Amino acid sequence: MDHPAVIRPADVATWRSDKMGKTTLFESPRVLVGLNAFEPGQSHALHAHAGMDKVYQVLEGEGQFLLEGQELPMKSGDLLVAPDGVPHGVRNTGAARLLVLTILAPAPGPTSSHG
Amino acid sequence: MDHPAVIRPADVATWRSDKMGKTTLFESPRVLVGLNAFEPGQSHALHAHAGMDKVYQVLEGEGQFLLEGQELPMKSGDLLVAPDGVPHGVRNTGAARLLVLTILAPAPGPTSSHG
Repeated sequence: MDHPAVIRPADVATWRSDKMGKTTLFESPRVLVGLNAFEPGQSHALHAHAGMDKVYQVLEGEGQFLLEGQELPMKSGDLLVAPDGVPHGVRNTGAARLLVLTILAPAPGPTSSHG
Repeated sequence: MDHPAVIRPADVATWRSDKMGKTTLFESPRVLVGLNAFEPGQSHALHAHAGMDKVYQVLEGEGQFLLEGQELPMKSGDLLVAPDGVPHGVRNTGAARLLVLTILAPAPGPTSSHG
């Protein structure tokens, strides 16, 4: 980020009709800060990150978060951590859009998929 | 965190009458996830973290954030990144409580002050 500034996540989210939309807000070798945007019914399949912790914070809407075989209902304001190697996923089970702040530490390498 | 679970930040914040309250939500060598809680008038003096990026997200209230000599008004929902080495601080200039999610990556060492 060349010019640090206040970010209003809802204003910069990427919404897609075909699948979850992703936006990168800040990236360094230490951390990737982004948004995952789910239209109703959209999901992010269970996955894990080796050597990285992931923080989810729900900014808007509600959904089911998967973590270590648990299904956790989450709504705006709720926070969840998927520590190193713990499988996690998200499904928008609500009738409205679900917007989630995602933080991965450290950031994935340039050849990894992420989010 | 032994048993990952959904966290409702507002329910676990620490409020102090004498100074900013701090709460740790999750810590690993890779990331420190916490809360800074400011009663009206409380502040966190300008400081910097060498080798760490810090993410602020305002969960409740409003205030002035200091970043590289700028004063940035922020309110609930707004996000700001203080990259490695960039001085930053916070002041609750509002009439209500200010609750801020803070993420430091990587986490400070055990002998550092942090937050």
